[in-house]
Amino acid sequence: MPHRVVITGAAGFIGRHVARRFALADWSVIGLGHGTWSREDATLWGIAEWHPTDISFDALSNLVSIPDAIIHCAGSGSVGYSLNHPFQDFHRSAGTVAATLEYMRLRAPHARLVYLSSAAVYGYAGDAPIREDALPAPLSPYGFHKMMGESLCRMYGTQYKVSSVIVRLFSVYGCGLQKQLLWDACCKAFAGNHSFDGAGDETRDWLHVQDAADLIYRAVDHSSTDSLPANGGTGEAPSIRAVLHELFAALHISAAPTFSGMTRHGDPKHYQADVSVIQKWGWVPTVGWRDGIRAYAEWFQSRAS
Amino acid sequence: MPHRVVITGAAGFIGRHVARRFALADWSVIGLGHGTWSREDATLWGIAEWHPTDISFDALSNLVSIPDAIIHCAGSGSVGYSLNHPFQDFHRSAGTVAATLEYMRLRAPHARLVYLSSAAVYGYAGDAPIREDALPAPLSPYGFHKMMGESLCRMYGTQYKVSSVIVRLFSVYGCGLQKQLLWDACCKAFAGNHSFDGAGDETRDWLHVQDAADLIYRAVDHSSTDSLPANGGTGEAPSIRAVLHELFAALHISAAPTFSGMTRHGDPKHYQADVSVIQKWGWVPTVGWRDGIRAYAEWFQSRAS
Repeated sequence: MPHRVVITGAAGFIGRHVARRFALADWSVIGLGHGTWSREDATLWGIAEWHPTDISFDALSNLVSIPDAIIHCAGSGSVGYSLNHPFQDFHRSAGTVAATLEYMRLRAPHARLVYLSSAAVYGYAGDAPIREDALPAPLSPYGFHKMMGESLCRMYGTQYKVSSVIVRLFSVYGCGLQKQLLWDACCKAFAGNHSFDGAGDETRDWLHVQDAADLIYRAVDHSSTDSLPANGGTGEAPSIRAVLHELFAALHISAAPTFSGMTRHGDPKHYQADVSVIQKWGWVPTVGWRDGIRAYAEWFQSRAS
Repeated sequence: MPHRVVITGAAGFIGRHVARRFALADWSVIGLGHGTWSREDATLWGIAEWHPTDISFDALSNLVSIPDAIIHCAGSGSVGYSLNHPFQDFHRSAGTVAATLEYMRLRAPHARLVYLSSAAVYGYAGDAPIREDALPAPLSPYGFHKMMGESLCRMYGTQYKVSSVIVRLFSVYGCGLQKQLLWDACCKAFAGNHSFDGAGDETRDWLHVQDAADLIYRAVDHSSTDSLPANGGTGEAPSIRAVLHELFAALHISAAPTFSGMTRHGDPKHYQADVSVIQKWGWVPTVGWRDGIRAYAEWFQSRAS
């Protein structure tokens, strides 16, 4: 009998890649969340069963079969959204993982949870690679609510022996992502605008979505009642300037990006993952940031033409 | 025009004393929560307006007048309940303060919030008086959810300038409380049972509910966007043995309490507040624990006869 995985938020950008990764390994994938699938897309992404619903205790309890693993991809995916809608973000983020953990406690006590957290829990962390034992100091409601979700995982582990692992994702990107820096930069560049906020020397740790999905898939084996965190990054952190140069080159734009020097409060300057935990898992990323960005530019151009 | 205060959970043990304290100072008291009041009780406890409702964003937004202060007494009041119902506790505790903070952000930006937290956020804290800057390490869902409520207060302070203050209550007691050690001990003693779990040398910092209400009333003036915590205790921490001796004497029971030595996991041995923060506020308790316990015994006897 194949293993069964429940993926919340499976129609989202990360969720669908996670679904495909599990399907490739012959897991039976049950998706819950917002969105709809054509029959072709459901097959393509490996969704065997789809439940269009909010993530709630009732929605999970209505599932006929008990999963072996649950990947919690649901929740708001944006710092900007959380700043304008903190209460909704609280419910989507902390509320949905609370419901998932309660479902596990009462109905699926042997399942293993992978909770998708974020580097946003760290806040300002200096310019060295960030280790998982750094004290969380989130700057946005998004980061605060992810931190609360982590707390809930730990609490359910300690109190009720619910098994989970926390993956703190850094900058996940890839073809199909229609938001954040790369998308905005492509749209701007096509409109002839080459100027950006910030100083250009900010750094981010770019994790390709296929690598992210593979890491999340592997993470299942590292869940425990200690609910330990692992950074989801590559350990490399190119500057925004370098990333945009690469992107512009791939888009055949000869102009260089310029920077206003304006920075947004709550945007840490540097984000670079210390990857020793995932290295101990034996995991390494397969897509370098230059290749990934070139592929993104190609996808964008094919889409626009 | 009198000041207006909204008290959530105003029909609860602490809530009704808080209501009376504000009414004594000529505030107009608007209560929200579960429970009902006779006309006489509402007058006695100073409730000018009562809304029987769950604490939600909608319930708060339906209030006609904007309050100057909000005292968040709503939420589960028991470690034991939270252990058996962690998901409900999450909603009652973190969920209701999230709704209250969102209401303040959008509808009552000039109001000041007093958030009733608990010494349970500290967890095992050694046998020295606990300072507010001790790292939270809660042991129960109750403590975890109170910690999350505190996080939400800080986040709304930092992000949205919502003004609040956190009062971490220690062992609040007083006439009328029908749960916890004193109640259980009185019931047992009347049934001829003088044996207790624990070793007897555990300590608790007993705060009389009238002092707690007065402290909460004073706390309004110390709210800020930094959302700082203050211990709600006396700084005295008699042993359980000493407390039960006092109680038995007041009940005219000649037997001495005995102890099984069994301890419950998740029950810290010592809880004693460092009171330097509230002392800086110029606040001192008025009811010593011996007097308070004698009054409790009298109330219990008058009730039983």
